[in-house]
Amino acid sequence: MEQSSDIRIDGRAIAKKIEERVKADAERLIKRGVIPRLVSVAVDDEDPSFESYMKSRAKACARVGIESEVEIVPLKDAERALGLKAARLSEDRSVHGVLFSLPLPSGVNDQSVYTRLDHRKDVEGMHPWNAGLLALGRPRFVPCTALAVMEILKRETIDVEGRHVVILGRSKVVGAPLASMLLHKSTGGNGTVTVCHSRTRDLPHFCAQADILVAAIGQPEFVKGEWLRQGAVVLDVGTHAIDDPAYKRGWRLVGDVHYESACTVASRITPVPGGVGPVTTALLLQATVRAAMGADE
Amino acid sequence: MEQSSDIRIDGRAIAKKIEERVKADAERLIKRGVIPRLVSVAVDDEDPSFESYMKSRAKACARVGIESEVEIVPLKDAERALGLKAARLSEDRSVHGVLFSLPLPSGVNDQSVYTRLDHRKDVEGMHPWNAGLLALGRPRFVPCTALAVMEILKRETIDVEGRHVVILGRSKVVGAPLASMLLHKSTGGNGTVTVCHSRTRDLPHFCAQADILVAAIGQPEFVKGEWLRQGAVVLDVGTHAIDDPAYKRGWRLVGDVHYESACTVASRITPVPGGVGPVTTALLLQATVRAAMGADE
Repeated sequence: MEQSSDIRIDGRAIAKKIEERVKADAERLIKRGVIPRLVSVAVDDEDPSFESYMKSRAKACARVGIESEVEIVPLKDAERALGLKAARLSEDRSVHGVLFSLPLPSGVNDQSVYTRLDHRKDVEGMHPWNAGLLALGRPRFVPCTALAVMEILKRETIDVEGRHVVILGRSKVVGAPLASMLLHKSTGGNGTVTVCHSRTRDLPHFCAQADILVAAIGQPEFVKGEWLRQGAVVLDVGTHAIDDPAYKRGWRLVGDVHYESACTVASRITPVPGGVGPVTTALLLQATVRAAMGADE
Repeated sequence: MEQSSDIRIDGRAIAKKIEERVKADAERLIKRGVIPRLVSVAVDDEDPSFESYMKSRAKACARVGIESEVEIVPLKDAERALGLKAARLSEDRSVHGVLFSLPLPSGVNDQSVYTRLDHRKDVEGMHPWNAGLLALGRPRFVPCTALAVMEILKRETIDVEGRHVVILGRSKVVGAPLASMLLHKSTGGNGTVTVCHSRTRDLPHFCAQADILVAAIGQPEFVKGEWLRQGAVVLDVGTHAIDDPAYKRGWRLVGDVHYESACTVASRITPVPGGVGPVTTALLLQATVRAAMGADE
């Protein structure tokens, strides 16, 4: 993969820069006696990858001076338990940011949970109030993954204005809020945006038109290089573990894009791992420290 | 235009059907002693078309049994005055629906106005809470013009699923909320959606791809028939008065689409006047009666 090193977007380097600034902000807060604190609430569904995911988030928090905590609620009667957590954490003045591990179990109405959370602590931007501010063009807290895509475009000086951005995936956490931001009349916005999804007919046809392609469709190595326009910018939001006996541990991480083939046509591309993921985490830290700064005003 | 009568979508007929149902709902409320009431708040900017617009809205309200009222605030210090109105009307239990004549004067932060309005009275869906519910896939009050497009598609049984809908215009009142609804995983949704606007390069290229084209770009007769794909469905949201000496009064109404040329290629098309406009008004009445029903629960 040596030949692609110049087109590869280094998400870890971007995340590091963001974290440096967040750390400085956190230090200022701590000097004033405010320790930024993030609570993750998860449902006990025994997902084996969950623990390592939480560990890596806790490490990231620690790096910048954020205290973090995980609270687990039982799967049984999860909606009620999550709502109670939301209400309790909203009251707790020592907590600045709260997030729920998404997706919530099927059957749980996420909105009945999020509306019980103080929207000033909603660091993932899933409360109706925050989703509304974004839709109306005045974003405050927005989903971190969608924001990570915007941040990468900005930091890599990839101009969106007037260009055709094709988003694969319409989820509330990535596709939909990202479309909203890319369309805004503001720096970093002004793109022409197409949103595709599982019901789209002839996905390759749309991919071929993208100046900038964002893959957030949740299918490992789904987008092939031959679907892409020569010179396209490719941002890969997916993360999947697939079996690979060539690796000692028996698996490797891949994205929604078939990286090898995409590298032959893309002008810039985010790898998986090391692309959108670390930037997303850094932006979660940023949102938490901002929430703490807001509470301290 | 006789040749196009079979492709012409009759917005007035659709509006009439909606109004019949709304009137029946209003009658039930009135029997219970609740008189649905809508207040329009406008800034005194001496727009000559304003009065006739308000008169026609008042007539529509009267047709279905809604009491309506217009309150005018002075242009000077409008933001403060609008905010105070919003707060006062939120308190007033006899008022069920409130709308502000958009666009608000430049310099007025609409959000500072809307956030002072009780979101249960926000019949135009411009409060962050309502915009958020829509963005999160659980719409309650949504902008009536965007909803009118959805209603027309539904009532004319024009299937959106998997088809390419191209929206010209990204406004908060039409383009953006409409994109959101067309993308939803639900009946009437599941479209592949492209949003274009003034910064889009090569608009005709995008128009040519539309199975369904929604023009909401605010330019009289901007979209030409030769831009369209044979058989496209065309929904025209624009309304403009243009000079025309062939008319006794010296002007006529046109939309964002050049109707005559579009008729030669479109399979279905909304005229202006008599297309999206009357449906929008009917849906405003519907929202007001629903707000009154909600308040009566």
